Amino acid sequence: MSTPPFLLSPGPVTIPDFVLEALHRPVIHHRTKAFESFYETLCRRLQYLFQTESLTGTFPGSGTYGVEMAMRSLFRSGEQVLILNNGKFSERWVQYGQLLGLQVLELKVAWGKRIDVEQVQHIAQEYPTLTGVVLTHSETSTGAVIDLEEMADALRRAHPEICILVDAITSVGSLPYYHDEWGIDASIVASQKALLNPAGLVAFALSTRAEARLSPTFGGDFANLHNFAAQARLNSYPFTPPLTLLYGVNAALQRMEDETLPVWWQRSQDSARTFREGLAQLGGQVFTDHPGHSLTAFTIPEVDLTELQQHVENTHGLVLAGGQGRLHGNILRVSHMGGADVARMKQLLAGIQAYLVGRVRSS
Amino acid sequence: MSTPPFLLSPGPVTIPDFVLEALHRPVIHHRTKAFESFYETLCRRLQYLFQTESLTGTFPGSGTYGVEMAMRSLFRSGEQVLILNNGKFSERWVQYGQLLGLQVLELKVAWGKRIDVEQVQHIAQEYPTLTGVVLTHSETSTGAVIDLEEMADALRRAHPEICILVDAITSVGSLPYYHDEWGIDASIVASQKALLNPAGLVAFALSTRAEARLSPTFGGDFANLHNFAAQARLNSYPFTPPLTLLYGVNAALQRMEDETLPVWWQRSQDSARTFREGLAQLGGQVFTDHPGHSLTAFTIPEVDLTELQQHVENTHGLVLAGGQGRLHGNILRVSHMGGADVARMKQLLAGIQAYLVGRVRSS
Repeated sequence: MSTPPFLLSPGPVTIPDFVLEALHRPVIHHRTKAFESFYETLCRRLQYLFQTESLTGTFPGSGTYGVEMAMRSLFRSGEQVLILNNGKFSERWVQYGQLLGLQVLELKVAWGKRIDVEQVQHIAQEYPTLTGVVLTHSETSTGAVIDLEEMADALRRAHPEICILVDAITSVGSLPYYHDEWGIDASIVASQKALLNPAGLVAFALSTRAEARLSPTFGGDFANLHNFAAQARLNSYPFTPPLTLLYGVNAALQRMEDETLPVWWQRSQDSARTFREGLAQLGGQVFTDHPGHSLTAFTIPEVDLTELQQHVENTHGLVLAGGQGRLHGNILRVSHMGGADVARMKQLLAGIQAYLVGRVRSS
Repeated sequence: MSTPPFLLSPGPVTIPDFVLEALHRPVIHHRTKAFESFYETLCRRLQYLFQTESLTGTFPGSGTYGVEMAMRSLFRSGEQVLILNNGKFSERWVQYGQLLGLQVLELKVAWGKRIDVEQVQHIAQEYPTLTGVVLTHSETSTGAVIDLEEMADALRRAHPEICILVDAITSVGSLPYYHDEWGIDASIVASQKALLNPAGLVAFALSTRAEARLSPTFGGDFANLHNFAAQARLNSYPFTPPLTLLYGVNAALQRMEDETLPVWWQRSQDSARTFREGLAQLGGQVFTDHPGHSLTAFTIPEVDLTELQQHVENTHGLVLAGGQGRLHGNILRVSHMGGADVARMKQLLAGIQAYLVGRVRSS
């Protein structure tokens, strides 16, 4: 077979060779000093990733599980929690909050639209009983980002003790992110995004405030973040860890440390800029009015996007993602993480151009 | 470095090369026909593994999460559920049942002791309001098995509609297991056991009765088995799947299909018989009075087991597991799954013998 197609979906991403090699490391038993030493290193590298001196750790699951596990473990039924909704994933956190019995305060704006910091500040001041907030830094369904630093600051000023939970799933590792400096309490990321790994692992950072909110049930409760956090403090795991994935994530974190985070952030930014400049020249439009650099959701007027998607996959071996939920058929999405770099964007733009030219000719 | 140590722990197991190779397959996007076709094949192979024509599927997590997710999704708060407890894991299901608010009926016997079918039958008849049961086929903490066929039959005769959930984590793939023929409703297995894979994936089989017990919350609820089951019916996944692990598990299942299940069962049985015969000659004893063939928990009178464990690891590169919970320091555990075969057992016995001889000489 020829070269396999290259994933340009904003997660899962194509796994680089150095990560694939790490997945081959022999499994060791997890009740050993060797595991503890390995996990200690990995968690220290996660501190670099999240830019925090607080507790970091991991547990098995996809990104959705990560945020839901955090919501379930950090907030109590009846607590008043503000959830900003401007896309498919942030909408999911609203639904999950309602399922948990939280008193959900939803700020809903049109998918892809910018969420105004002043409006959030206004809400925060109007609701003195607010104790938590769930923010989606980068909405994977639309590519929209929020001004996290300003948003967190506004919330903190109104409610010094509010617990700020951030879905950082397509942000950490490709967008500047400062868990401590921005005063975030819980940050969640997933392995199949900027960590360039197979799906299946969640990584977290927890402030002292967030850690204090966790409460023990019993040691065997897999769905309680407390168990993973308490064991991470001991460089240990409450259950058999997904060690192969930990190897892969550790390799990505090591690479990140060697190259430094700003280099990773810049790579995403360069990829995004290259793509968007080329897209504009081809008559395309970025979907959101406030895009981040980890992915671009876009449309090209009067073009059948599904046909375009098929074309670049068939002729250039580049796999784009379509729109989700109500955006199905209306947008395409392209990643700027990892191997989805400037060179790859140029290939993609060439593929799109070839499709558009062919379309004009055949019409 | 020399050959890495070989794991003889009853999960995680050393991953065979053919599985490691499968982990290298390029990740494809999961919202594609190619993924659906792959997952359909995998789920069909899981039907062979569980010996069922009912629904099979997977979700991310370790074995504990598998059973807990099933308990949470199959039983309602207040339901009367019988849980048999004769070891660390079955004890965990009791604790989790209580946490869920089930009306837990616990049959507790000493760790490692046989659970009597007639006693279970008696309880089943005495409690007409019983609607569910959680059985641990093979207790990974002690190596004890229950007579699952007879147990399920006795329960079914007393309560035709009872929902039988089986922790089959160290049984399926190494012990004969017949989900349909034995009338099991929900069977749970984990990837790092007889499936010879990295930890991180749970596989399940659900009878029509079990499926009918699942109820929808909303599509984004990761902790509801309903979502994984409903999507498995469509050969699809509700969230980004841990595809690399699915590749690995698929490779193991394919190998199992090619070699046939009875060959796998026989391999475990031969390994167990070889080890136990040799152990008896060395003065050792099997811990439980009702051992299965997927692992052996054992002791050797007047021998420092931790020192013995260190010796076989250092001199023979064979990693045994110690006892868990209250059995810590009192037993060692050896796997009979996968590469822990007859040849490996002979190496282990030689290692134990060398230790015992050295000990006599130096005393």
